[in-house]
Amino acid sequence: MSNQETPAASPRQVSHRGRSAGPAANSNKDAEEVPEFEPFMLLPRGPPPLHEFLDIWDLDMLKQPHEVNKQRHHTHLYANNLLIVRRAQEFEIKITFNRPYKPEEDKFAVEFVIGASPQYNKGTYIPVFPKEEQQSTWRGRVVDSTENVVTMGITASPDCIVGKYRFYVAVVTPYGIRRTRRDPANDIYVLFNPWSPADTVFLDDEEEREECVLNELGIIYHGAYDDVSERAWNYGQFEYGILDACLLILDNAAMPLTNRGDPIKVTRVASAMLNSKDDEGVLVGNWSGDYTYGVAPTSWTGSVEILMTYVGSREPVCYAQCWVFAAVFNTFLRCVGIPGRVVTNFFSAHDNDGNLKMDIILDENGRIDRNRTKDSIWNYHCWNECFMSRPDLPQGFGGWQVVDATPQETSDGMYRCGPASVAAIKHGQICYPFDGPFVFAEVNSDVVFYQRNKEGSLHPVKVNPSHVGRMVLTKAPLGEGRRDITDQYKFPEDSAEERRVLEKAEELGCHRQKRSVSEGDVDVSIPAKEVRVGEDFELVLEFRNRSGQRRTVDVYVSGTVVYYTGVPSAEVVFKTPTVKLEPHKDFKEVINVRSQDYMSKLVEQGNLHFIATGKVKETGQIITAMKTITMHNPKLRVQVSGQPKVNEEMWVSVEFFNSFKFSLENVNVRMEGPGVMPYKSKQYSVIAPSTSITWTETFTPRRAGYTKVMASLDCAAIRQVYGEADVNIVP
Amino acid sequence: MSNQETPAASPRQVSHRGRSAGPAANSNKDAEEVPEFEPFMLLPRGPPPLHEFLDIWDLDMLKQPHEVNKQRHHTHLYANNLLIVRRAQEFEIKITFNRPYKPEEDKFAVEFVIGASPQYNKGTYIPVFPKEEQQSTWRGRVVDSTENVVTMGITASPDCIVGKYRFYVAVVTPYGIRRTRRDPANDIYVLFNPWSPADTVFLDDEEEREECVLNELGIIYHGAYDDVSERAWNYGQFEYGILDACLLILDNAAMPLTNRGDPIKVTRVASAMLNSKDDEGVLVGNWSGDYTYGVAPTSWTGSVEILMTYVGSREPVCYAQCWVFAAVFNTFLRCVGIPGRVVTNFFSAHDNDGNLKMDIILDENGRIDRNRTKDSIWNYHCWNECFMSRPDLPQGFGGWQVVDATPQETSDGMYRCGPASVAAIKHGQICYPFDGPFVFAEVNSDVVFYQRNKEGSLHPVKVNPSHVGRMVLTKAPLGEGRRDITDQYKFPEDSAEERRVLEKAEELGCHRQKRSVSEGDVDVSIPAKEVRVGEDFELVLEFRNRSGQRRTVDVYVSGTVVYYTGVPSAEVVFKTPTVKLEPHKDFKEVINVRSQDYMSKLVEQGNLHFIATGKVKETGQIITAMKTITMHNPKLRVQVSGQPKVNEEMWVSVEFFNSFKFSLENVNVRMEGPGVMPYKSKQYSVIAPSTSITWTETFTPRRAGYTKVMASLDCAAIRQVYGEADVNIVP
Repeated sequence: MSNQETPAASPRQVSHRGRSAGPAANSNKDAEEVPEFEPFMLLPRGPPPLHEFLDIWDLDMLKQPHEVNKQRHHTHLYANNLLIVRRAQEFEIKITFNRPYKPEEDKFAVEFVIGASPQYNKGTYIPVFPKEEQQSTWRGRVVDSTENVVTMGITASPDCIVGKYRFYVAVVTPYGIRRTRRDPANDIYVLFNPWSPADTVFLDDEEEREECVLNELGIIYHGAYDDVSERAWNYGQFEYGILDACLLILDNAAMPLTNRGDPIKVTRVASAMLNSKDDEGVLVGNWSGDYTYGVAPTSWTGSVEILMTYVGSREPVCYAQCWVFAAVFNTFLRCVGIPGRVVTNFFSAHDNDGNLKMDIILDENGRIDRNRTKDSIWNYHCWNECFMSRPDLPQGFGGWQVVDATPQETSDGMYRCGPASVAAIKHGQICYPFDGPFVFAEVNSDVVFYQRNKEGSLHPVKVNPSHVGRMVLTKAPLGEGRRDITDQYKFPEDSAEERRVLEKAEELGCHRQKRSVSEGDVDVSIPAKEVRVGEDFELVLEFRNRSGQRRTVDVYVSGTVVYYTGVPSAEVVFKTPTVKLEPHKDFKEVINVRSQDYMSKLVEQGNLHFIATGKVKETGQIITAMKTITMHNPKLRVQVSGQPKVNEEMWVSVEFFNSFKFSLENVNVRMEGPGVMPYKSKQYSVIAPSTSITWTETFTPRRAGYTKVMASLDCAAIRQVYGEADVNIVP
Repeated sequence: MSNQETPAASPRQVSHRGRSAGPAANSNKDAEEVPEFEPFMLLPRGPPPLHEFLDIWDLDMLKQPHEVNKQRHHTHLYANNLLIVRRAQEFEIKITFNRPYKPEEDKFAVEFVIGASPQYNKGTYIPVFPKEEQQSTWRGRVVDSTENVVTMGITASPDCIVGKYRFYVAVVTPYGIRRTRRDPANDIYVLFNPWSPADTVFLDDEEEREECVLNELGIIYHGAYDDVSERAWNYGQFEYGILDACLLILDNAAMPLTNRGDPIKVTRVASAMLNSKDDEGVLVGNWSGDYTYGVAPTSWTGSVEILMTYVGSREPVCYAQCWVFAAVFNTFLRCVGIPGRVVTNFFSAHDNDGNLKMDIILDENGRIDRNRTKDSIWNYHCWNECFMSRPDLPQGFGGWQVVDATPQETSDGMYRCGPASVAAIKHGQICYPFDGPFVFAEVNSDVVFYQRNKEGSLHPVKVNPSHVGRMVLTKAPLGEGRRDITDQYKFPEDSAEERRVLEKAEELGCHRQKRSVSEGDVDVSIPAKEVRVGEDFELVLEFRNRSGQRRTVDVYVSGTVVYYTGVPSAEVVFKTPTVKLEPHKDFKEVINVRSQDYMSKLVEQGNLHFIATGKVKETGQIITAMKTITMHNPKLRVQVSGQPKVNEEMWVSVEFFNSFKFSLENVNVRMEGPGVMPYKSKQYSVIAPSTSITWTETFTPRRAGYTKVMASLDCAAIRQVYGEADVNIVP
């Protein structure tokens, strides 16, 4: 019996003969070797008398972390044995010849080669000459020549390909070119260089560079603009294997090598490759609440585990939500040398088809019509900013650029986003690539309340122009503080500049609702509230009557459990108070929300979304207020002990007490610490009510400096329980 | 024995609960029905007394080709039984009620609904009211009210969704809304409207509209700029099933319905969907010469067979090259009402990584180094232009836009291209979306000849700025002439404007080689030559010595069989004459090319590419000349007989004589005629040398007017043998 099957050749697998003249150079992988001997012409019989000419005895790439190259190039932190340098900055190598080098007679060159079919004019084959009068795109010079040893200084061109080069030394003899044999130990990585003014990613601020290139320790903001929470994250861009993983991402995208010197193209390709849509990218997005077949997005504590899993399996890693996409993208950016940071936009407009409004539909009485309200405003959305000049655009649009790897399902097949100039977004100049209108809408959309009449037509009753893009936060350099960068994206609300920007965006095709909706004389608002999960709490509606008459309002208060994407799961509160307001008076209506109303229905990040709408009886005015309450979870207790010294053993304990009235099942606990402890994870099948668990591990710090050990606890019933401990390692 | 397998649920198939609030409206397909009765409140027991109110007895969509709607809306040619109208132009329907309509009391509306979850604010549910004082986004009015019959005029908004709407009439009663039952025969298609100034695709030229919207008969140019050939093509945009096929393409792209009113987005999505890369699109590109598993690109004679195959199999159709992608895209554009035309760019730069040069590498002696020359210049490339305003860009960039559905394999994962404003390309304003730099390079790249020295570095020896983008052609309206539209893309060579444009493009990041290469005093050129396949011919090199001294040139002449993409297949001629030039004299060197040298090696479109390079001994000057010779194939003889009258039977015969010395095997013959004959194909296993075949078919013209019957013959040994016959059908 035979199980053999000869699969039919697919008619759609066609060769590219006739289409291209050679194999595509789109991978860092080695291809054919450069020949060791390249004759100039027909040789005389017998081996050529090569012994007369310069011969290479030894090569020293000066690649140890403490040596000159990695120190000067800010690459000493990479856990990588090969030489790693940056563009547009000199590095040195030592060549030991069989005899002293004679500049007048001897001709040699060092050669850098990347990918298949290396070609000088494609930047994939670069000879570097030691003489002033003969120079290629990369500069070379003899720094020192002592006895048989030449120290050569080499400066990669500021726009050269970023990746892993093979290295040769070639000596020119009258008979041909003689080369050193390839030695993988002499391969070198060339990275982007934010320290060099010649590089397009130059960032002229040492503090920013320390943070946005060299810092492995991250903080990602979430929650609500008036009740911000933090997640610690280990970007781990210097960990063993991560640099190769980042280059593999570009190789898997089959990105042509010739484009890999351009940070615009590199970040655009990476924004597509970080998600698995279309292209077998790094991470699978999942917002369903069911993470059975992978790791819950809330459970990860860093990028290293994700990237190493991707490298190991060559398959997309399950699962991610926006901050996971942004955090791993940030690792990529910092690792290849592009300054990068994760930002959080609170109340981010999405799924709105690129127009500038999010629609909320009310019925004739002013109650929200959840069936007809399809737009959702994300409580927050994380994306990345990367720093570069924009030679492809008119002046003024360099600097920070938005890139976003979260797949935008509903937006016209767009599974990549950016780079979009933050300055262009701020000035409404959304006609420039890439994806300006999309990012502009994320921070500038109006919330428009429509009332639907019996016959089915809608008319706008209220426009809230300040809800969306309420605040944009990122981590401040070095210190741990937040930095509010909202003013990088928007001019102040109601300023003349803001109006001009919105007009500009409308000129460039952004449609929005006219704001000319009468404002009325009654206001309602809901103040912020900090609530711990499982608590009963009071929600306060504050009414203000600015008129000289009495006002009566029929109010609908709806509280819904929502995902952080604003998508509703279940309504848990519904009240319809009638509120009577005296002339020129305020009034507070209190809504009691009980734990038992919401606990069994909470999803994911424990968000409750309240919307209060109503119609003033006397005037017909529609009033609205919205508030998102993010439940605060219990914390993990993380404690570190032992002597905080490099290479000394230390201990960490992670402790959790189940204060809920129910058991937690299939609980996943993870921890890691940048530079001190690789990621570890542990599974608990049950944590009973009022019991606690303690997990203790040893670790041995690899390097000195301030760092953290961070831990997460995650299960279906309660997600994103975090804890961390600071530790300062001495040398 | 059981063969059952339960496939493991893939972890990457995740639901979008938590991500979006409702099903995506991204298909023309019906979803849930609109309810026939929609109560306003709790009803009294028993059936409501609906008989008192307006009731609908009959609906007439006035949808016959000779009736007012299709005539006025230029949609009478569609072989489609439903009503087809265009945006921003009134159409009429007749509603017969149970009694005369009383405007003062009766309330009714007609409703247009498209896709799932129809919503007024998304433009997927549109009520239209007959009264001046109550109007929605689409305007309605009573044109005539006679007895029980109301003729209602309806004008779709100029930016409404293009697609297939469901239609209802709703009567408002005190108890609720009462609707007609859905009748698929009353569905209506709404298309773009180039005749209406309010539509963004408005084209203010009746001749152009007749050609670029209504003409089914196309001519596509190919060959060489100095020896242009023509292909006839049946776009067939009005054939039965084609309109549905075009909407299916957008549905298969899952394009959100809300975006389908925007021709910028529609054409961009279509440019991605016409090729099968990424997205299970319409056509599979294949340039390999092996078309065993499908139809050779050269064999198709029209778009109808391709689109109907795609609809039938729901799989990409094999195979296409650039003109097939462009032709089917053109069918799409004209069918949905966007003015479209196919253009041909002669010597099109491709695969050049977005910079502005195509590199040709010569060795030290001036001979072409084919191993190191990887860039290829396509003999020609076809793309589409579509006409629309560009509200997303600053003023001045509306008009014709480049869109290109041919997958650009090597260009940064770009399997869609455009719309890119032709005016922006002409002015070097390549910073605007979409894909300006790519299109700019296709028409503006320099050909740079480099000489490679022994040590491996290259230096430029000659720059040819006028080779690429030599001519852009399209079919002139109505008549059959060519129209040279090169001046739409470029200012005249060497003009001040041209220099400014190139500087502008460089400011915006396009890299190019400085042209400061010394010109020398010797020229060489190769005049054009018309050659029939199988002929011996003479290739002439014309030398001119502009100096007062003698000159000696070592010349390398290499003739290579190439694909139309410029990719070489085999060298068939190689000569190395030494040419002596007297002062101020011309000289002709003749190279004899024999049939036996090239016949067995010809590929596809029978192109020979000659490059003559050489070095002037006295001055070291490098001279170069290039010429592409397109072999002329024998023709098919197509003859039509019978009375050319609608619905009368006619005959067509296709005749071919094999004048070659070898047998043709597996010969595929195809024919069709727009409006007169559907596509037919026939296979001949062998056509022996010096024998002929004749294929006769009958056909019955469906409509009057000037048209053609076109035929192709195709086999591995000889491709793109064409023939056609004109026929003028009288009514």
